[in-house]
Amino acid sequence: MYIGAIDIGGTKTIVGILTESGAVLIQKQSPTEQSDCEATFNRCAQQLTEISSEYGISVHTLDGIGVSLPATVESKSGALLLAPGAGWRNFPARDYLRRRLSTRRLWCDNDANNCARAELRFGKAPRDFLWLTVSTGIGGAIIADGCAIRGCNNLAGELGHYKVEVNHPLPCPCGSTGCLEAHASGSAISGAFLRLLNKDPDLAAQVKTSGLPANAAGCAALAKQGCSPAQEIFGQAAVYLGKSLAPVVSILNPERVYLGGGVALSADLLIPKIRETILYYAAKTCSDTEICATALGYNASLLGAAALFLECSGQQ
Amino acid sequence: MYIGAIDIGGTKTIVGILTESGAVLIQKQSPTEQSDCEATFNRCAQQLTEISSEYGISVHTLDGIGVSLPATVESKSGALLLAPGAGWRNFPARDYLRRRLSTRRLWCDNDANNCARAELRFGKAPRDFLWLTVSTGIGGAIIADGCAIRGCNNLAGELGHYKVEVNHPLPCPCGSTGCLEAHASGSAISGAFLRLLNKDPDLAAQVKTSGLPANAAGCAALAKQGCSPAQEIFGQAAVYLGKSLAPVVSILNPERVYLGGGVALSADLLIPKIRETILYYAAKTCSDTEICATALGYNASLLGAAALFLECSGQQ
Repeated sequence: MYIGAIDIGGTKTIVGILTESGAVLIQKQSPTEQSDCEATFNRCAQQLTEISSEYGISVHTLDGIGVSLPATVESKSGALLLAPGAGWRNFPARDYLRRRLSTRRLWCDNDANNCARAELRFGKAPRDFLWLTVSTGIGGAIIADGCAIRGCNNLAGELGHYKVEVNHPLPCPCGSTGCLEAHASGSAISGAFLRLLNKDPDLAAQVKTSGLPANAAGCAALAKQGCSPAQEIFGQAAVYLGKSLAPVVSILNPERVYLGGGVALSADLLIPKIRETILYYAAKTCSDTEICATALGYNASLLGAAALFLECSGQQ
Repeated sequence: MYIGAIDIGGTKTIVGILTESGAVLIQKQSPTEQSDCEATFNRCAQQLTEISSEYGISVHTLDGIGVSLPATVESKSGALLLAPGAGWRNFPARDYLRRRLSTRRLWCDNDANNCARAELRFGKAPRDFLWLTVSTGIGGAIIADGCAIRGCNNLAGELGHYKVEVNHPLPCPCGSTGCLEAHASGSAISGAFLRLLNKDPDLAAQVKTSGLPANAAGCAALAKQGCSPAQEIFGQAAVYLGKSLAPVVSILNPERVYLGGGVALSADLLIPKIRETILYYAAKTCSDTEICATALGYNASLLGAAALFLECSGQQ
């Protein structure tokens, strides 16, 4: 089976062809052009057509296509409702791509929901779990008894905009302040690291000399080398993540919480403190909820697009 | 259709016969004897047989039976896993009652899940909502796209044991401290009211003279008369409820939150502050989540037992 997969992320877009077991036959990455919504979708369709040719098949011989969007997606119509990062609103994503690629076997959903679907189909996920993308922003998904929960306005998963801080609230890209995303996302960790470097010229010089980037990845590298102020930045983010997850874990009783997104690469810096914080605040009955990094890596959302196609086309 | 319904609560048990539209044809209430689990179930079976006779039918002509338990219930077997209040553990509730009442058309579930089912079937509930029982304890249920979420160990809904207070944590019947239940349940409100009366002899004298009970109901009566320390007790409970609900509402995106249980009778003392707190802490996208008291009243869990039967027997 050849499955077309399109993963439009906040900064990069990947198109690929996958098999039903999640093997990537070919894939191609490019920067996401946020300026024009329709142009981006048009380009994705074109790229999928191109890599199909490159792989030696026609795009029309694909068994179907799944699409991951950095956006709220209306479940029935597959329309993009709002992509906060790019500022896109109300674009008929599914219908546009179906027309553009001359197929009815194409479905779209939110990227975090699709990542969770990928865990369910290609990972070793249990029937009840949470997925948390900790990247530029923070998104989430809930799988209950093997199905993604959507909520009444397709907004389930929005833990990133729960307010975790009222005393020293940081501004969030959403326009509010004190959101989990403002305090524990990759961007938030980068911000805290930059503030640290401004306060500590010796450390700033050390970072510069060693060629580390002045962002979350650089902070992670320093933390792994034992730099305690860098470790504290991850520790604080982990406390915010744990406090936000505790009531959710208490009421949903998931077997596991997966961390995905760029920050999952540094999950070992976060997980012990997230676990400790959840244990402290959550109902005691939830003390065996596992917290782990996804094993799907960078391609989770692309795999998720394929998983969405398999789910929507009724493949077991 | 005649549906047998059994609602075993922490303090009272109700058995009744209901129609498929939720009309109660006959019902009988008695105190729950917590000492002996099997004796309690045996007595319920006997009482259902008795009120059937009283109504002029045989218990064997009932179309089926639903049961609400103050307990975690294993979904497949209908076994009672743990009833924290009574201290019952691992009792094969469904199988025992099926044998005792000679029927296979009998199902059991947790009372909060059943209350939510009652809202869904007999109320005007949307497809996505939360139910919170605020009574002696605090229990909860989640309905997502019309179905009750169970969690991996049938423990979904346990918001009552999320820790809301670390600075002045009160002891909780679960053995922990600082739980939502210890700070915002009916018992917690009664406790805070007693502490207030101990500190304020004039108010204590006023309560005694006016014949008000020194519990949550008395506190509610005073609050409704404008007594500001009594209002503050409800206000504080509402803040704890709102803070616990905010992350849950953010991630689940329910259309509505129902408050049930004894405290729902005083919901007007809680709801404005719960709403305000959720609005403050939850993702802005959830600002239109409604908070309301159940309209099903005292019988929600009995109606829920009937709704469980209708669901399990496949009645639309």
